[in-house]
Amino acid sequence: MDRSLAWIPRTEFARVLGHVDDPYDRALAFAAMSRINTLYMITRAGSGHIGSSFSAADVVSWLLLEELDRPFEPDGDVYFSSKGHDAPGLYAAMIALGRLDEDGLHRLRRLGGLPGHPDVGTPGMPFNTGSLGMGISKAKGLVLAHRLAGRTSRVVVMTGDGELQEGQNWEALPSAARYGMGELTVVVDHNRLQSDTYVTDVSDLGDLTGKFTAAGWGVLHCDGHDPRQLEKAFAQRAEEHPDRPVVIVADTVKGGGCPTFAATSMAPGEWRYRHHSGAPSPEDHDAAYRELTATADEILRRHGQAPLAPETLTLDLPAKPSGVRLPELYGRLLTEAAHEDPRIVALDGDLLLDTGLIPFRDAHPDRFVECGIAEQDMVSMAGGLAAGGLRPFVHSFSCFLHARPNEHIYNNATERRPVVYVGSLAGLLPAGPGHSHQAVRDVSALGSVPGLTVLEPSHPAQLDAALRYCRTTPDSVYLRLSSQVVPAELAELPPAPLVPGRGHVLRAGRDAVAFGAGPVVLAQLLGAAGILAAQGVELTVVDLPWHNRIDPTWLDELLTGVRHAFVVEHQYGSGGQADLIARQLLETGTWDGAGFRGIGLTDVPRCGTDAEVLAAHGMDAPHLAQLIGADVLDRGRTTEPTGDTPWKLSATN
Amino acid sequence: MDRSLAWIPRTEFARVLGHVDDPYDRALAFAAMSRINTLYMITRAGSGHIGSSFSAADVVSWLLLEELDRPFEPDGDVYFSSKGHDAPGLYAAMIALGRLDEDGLHRLRRLGGLPGHPDVGTPGMPFNTGSLGMGISKAKGLVLAHRLAGRTSRVVVMTGDGELQEGQNWEALPSAARYGMGELTVVVDHNRLQSDTYVTDVSDLGDLTGKFTAAGWGVLHCDGHDPRQLEKAFAQRAEEHPDRPVVIVADTVKGGGCPTFAATSMAPGEWRYRHHSGAPSPEDHDAAYRELTATADEILRRHGQAPLAPETLTLDLPAKPSGVRLPELYGRLLTEAAHEDPRIVALDGDLLLDTGLIPFRDAHPDRFVECGIAEQDMVSMAGGLAAGGLRPFVHSFSCFLHARPNEHIYNNATERRPVVYVGSLAGLLPAGPGHSHQAVRDVSALGSVPGLTVLEPSHPAQLDAALRYCRTTPDSVYLRLSSQVVPAELAELPPAPLVPGRGHVLRAGRDAVAFGAGPVVLAQLLGAAGILAAQGVELTVVDLPWHNRIDPTWLDELLTGVRHAFVVEHQYGSGGQADLIARQLLETGTWDGAGFRGIGLTDVPRCGTDAEVLAAHGMDAPHLAQLIGADVLDRGRTTEPTGDTPWKLSATN
Repeated sequence: MDRSLAWIPRTEFARVLGHVDDPYDRALAFAAMSRINTLYMITRAGSGHIGSSFSAADVVSWLLLEELDRPFEPDGDVYFSSKGHDAPGLYAAMIALGRLDEDGLHRLRRLGGLPGHPDVGTPGMPFNTGSLGMGISKAKGLVLAHRLAGRTSRVVVMTGDGELQEGQNWEALPSAARYGMGELTVVVDHNRLQSDTYVTDVSDLGDLTGKFTAAGWGVLHCDGHDPRQLEKAFAQRAEEHPDRPVVIVADTVKGGGCPTFAATSMAPGEWRYRHHSGAPSPEDHDAAYRELTATADEILRRHGQAPLAPETLTLDLPAKPSGVRLPELYGRLLTEAAHEDPRIVALDGDLLLDTGLIPFRDAHPDRFVECGIAEQDMVSMAGGLAAGGLRPFVHSFSCFLHARPNEHIYNNATERRPVVYVGSLAGLLPAGPGHSHQAVRDVSALGSVPGLTVLEPSHPAQLDAALRYCRTTPDSVYLRLSSQVVPAELAELPPAPLVPGRGHVLRAGRDAVAFGAGPVVLAQLLGAAGILAAQGVELTVVDLPWHNRIDPTWLDELLTGVRHAFVVEHQYGSGGQADLIARQLLETGTWDGAGFRGIGLTDVPRCGTDAEVLAAHGMDAPHLAQLIGADVLDRGRTTEPTGDTPWKLSATN
Repeated sequence: MDRSLAWIPRTEFARVLGHVDDPYDRALAFAAMSRINTLYMITRAGSGHIGSSFSAADVVSWLLLEELDRPFEPDGDVYFSSKGHDAPGLYAAMIALGRLDEDGLHRLRRLGGLPGHPDVGTPGMPFNTGSLGMGISKAKGLVLAHRLAGRTSRVVVMTGDGELQEGQNWEALPSAARYGMGELTVVVDHNRLQSDTYVTDVSDLGDLTGKFTAAGWGVLHCDGHDPRQLEKAFAQRAEEHPDRPVVIVADTVKGGGCPTFAATSMAPGEWRYRHHSGAPSPEDHDAAYRELTATADEILRRHGQAPLAPETLTLDLPAKPSGVRLPELYGRLLTEAAHEDPRIVALDGDLLLDTGLIPFRDAHPDRFVECGIAEQDMVSMAGGLAAGGLRPFVHSFSCFLHARPNEHIYNNATERRPVVYVGSLAGLLPAGPGHSHQAVRDVSALGSVPGLTVLEPSHPAQLDAALRYCRTTPDSVYLRLSSQVVPAELAELPPAPLVPGRGHVLRAGRDAVAFGAGPVVLAQLLGAAGILAAQGVELTVVDLPWHNRIDPTWLDELLTGVRHAFVVEHQYGSGGQADLIARQLLETGTWDGAGFRGIGLTDVPRCGTDAEVLAAHGMDAPHLAQLIGADVLDRGRTTEPTGDTPWKLSATN
């Protein structure tokens, strides 16, 4: 729908920097203006993290304008955010300072634009962050590198407070103290909220001061929205702790800077903060814009300056797609299942909303364990629950569930007690958050865990069957869930038996067979089949939800007489379905030299709109049709015109 | 060589338990006797952890004899060790109490006996431990399961102090406090030494009391060798902290209980503790045996009891194999390389000795970073060093390097800065420590990391070439190193060019081709080729050191006219060389339906002697010969008698 959005051009920032002499007011005006552009970027992009960006905006302004020595210069002080999802706010400030192209304002989460989380491909970003808890360790490495080069540059890292639940932060503290890292300062954006709710309600951090002090760090506190206090804290940091690492706990308000988004506006007893991620409603956008402009204009007025002169654009912003998403349905199904089965326990890693667990928490509070941003602890706790005879279901985004607790999942598996790991946001899409959130290595990273089945349903009826499988199999299961809206062509598919290692023919055609799993891959394959049909090439599309199990008999029957087999997967490199099928075909020994091609990711996933990124990786229907069609025409059609023969239909279960 | 070894039969323990009335003396005598049997078990097994077992022995004795309510009963209190490598000491105590078969004394680290680290297959072991830092989390899960079942059993977890460097421990603390886990007690075996040296020299824990207190835990201290103090500490735990988790920091001496192994016997300034792992020398064994017997006999005398009546056995103990081991050579080569290349930095995860880095530390102290048992911090620090323009080499055992920091290795890879990860102890052998230490999932867990090459040299000359590759490639590398002695048939192989995706023919034969990597797999394959040759079957053995790179041209040339291809790997499930080669063959499209078989692990690795475990998994020469021979005879020989044709020789580079 058409929306009129305003943004503040760089020239206006220059005016403020040039004409507001008071450094504190200057920083506050700069922050308010950065927030306006952050609001614009996120609204235009359709997603992003307003709460975290606004929370950190005053700290970022003060650091970049006053505190740091030549930030972004090759030999200057270094600043980066470990939490990473405050990237839009940092981008806005860097654009205002001419450190990034102004065009970036209009290209957040677009291909070739500014990624959803920091990436070293963007000027001024020393590290890829967004996967939480790595920042302090990375900063320590940089400090040691500086020392070997004879540099004394300061390194300032921003972390969230929820982020401090990750054990790596605490693992990282001792050696910074041992090395006497006076160069290293950690600023905790202490807004007391993580994702959607209060840190204290998720996993209280306890005595933060005591924890850092016990590790040998200096600890300072300040109001993260008050430039005078920030100035004082950094002065103290230098005077009182010249030779030790220091943490500055900056008390902030999530969404701070305007009442509309400020967590302080939450109603008494309201548990959920609504502005962690996603684009604001038109009403919220307009209200926040007015509030932020008023704040900036008031400062300008006090300094004899004219009000802000924004640029405005009228844009046709796409509406959010509506329809069923598997995690939401999954949450309802698990809640129902838990009524029947008292052994079911659900563990969550601070993604209650995105993993669909709100109904479970409300219906079964005694069997719901909120673990916070602590995936290793969560997975090992699940091992303990399994040892106690329960059937734990462990939840997070796939990107955080398959890798960080990878050894812990393996350790549980060696105990041969079934645990179900449910990873949402699996696969290449959504592509906006960037590669820290795109799980395209999960199948290979987990596929060889003994006794663990990797299963990816593509539609509601199959999810229902998959959950029943998870509840009854003696195996452990990694349930890979796309969080995308299930496309119409899949949403209404009927229930069909779920047999390990077997798939279902979604569309039958004589010329070639293509395998895929999950709603996104299959929708693109069906689209490709449509394009190919118009060219006279008939493609069989097989939904194979099993990533590390294959039934040799079924496969042999399905591919008898087939001249071309393709496997399409949202998976990078080895260990996916293409490998699984290829090896099985060779070991069965009936493969007759027909064409085979695995089509997966060949590089780190790009960030952009879903359509942009599918195309960029050659994973959209047109590219798939082109690739498949070329192979088929190149090597000729099948010799036996089998068409929709019974065996193909029999292969549907 | 023949050795006379003594052990204490269960009847003697019964005598002590029955006739020493004083509970404190009883526990001390029991502990001394357990140490004697621990000494026997480890000496007979040829490996094991004396220092850690002895350090914990008095705590274990007191817990099992006096403190715990019906330990090992289905509804009794639960005790387990998170550090796990004190298993021999725990086994000895459990055997003495009739909780494990006495026969186990003679079967430590033997197939079907008692594994090197705890496994749930052994009665009384609730969890698989030995991979550090998971214990507190597992205990929390068990406590929650107990609560759901209405149980109030106590759960006591033993951790090491070096183990507390793992971030997961700190990640685990807050929710235990939030849940008010009065059932949970952690005992820290505070012996101040980790692996081979002092915790303070590796990564000081800082203010341990402060850290636990800040997380909301109760903290108590005691002498871990004094039963009276242990009794008092547990009484305090119950009285002062009924509704919170408590840590009891038990001050102990590594190797405590006899002067020979006690760390207090280390010379002033001596940095290395010599009894962390491995079997003691005959002299140390005999001295320790005398000391422990004297301790027990003195207590028995005080209580009017006759001295101990041990059983003795004369055993032919195999001598430790001698010869070159790749990690040791690697350490020397990296040290030399660092003289030429100032960008080389080495990071170690508390395995200085086993990763061969002692010469590097001594030659380049400014470029050596000891990270302690903190693999995630280590890997992310390496990312920071790489950002600073250095070339970090990151070291640990493969089992700890590929999985726990898996997401961190991926994150570094997305920054496209070369980092070299060097995992020693890779593969199925040594099989004594058990599955927590057998890295057979590392290839699949890392093989799909973008821009990361998985390379496994099999002999010294190839290691030299591999290190040169690591130093110069723009890629990151996971260097997979077996720690086994390189067999004679490989040790003297000449240098040969190392071309990505290409291997070398070690032995040429007309009937089939078998691929493998690393000294263990290749030695068994060469052995199998010998066996097969005697049966008239000629096997080509190819050393393919690349696990996730294959050169299609080379492969095609090598396999032209070949009727049978085999791939043997110390790898479980998917994502290994068998998948890599199978998929390439299908995609190249020249495969003519010849026989193909991947031979890898089909289950969790067993624990036992190396020979036992190779055989148990069908990975020794006789089993490989049988499997390969059967396929070849079953499907017939090659039609074209190519024999040792020039193309096979050309395929050697």
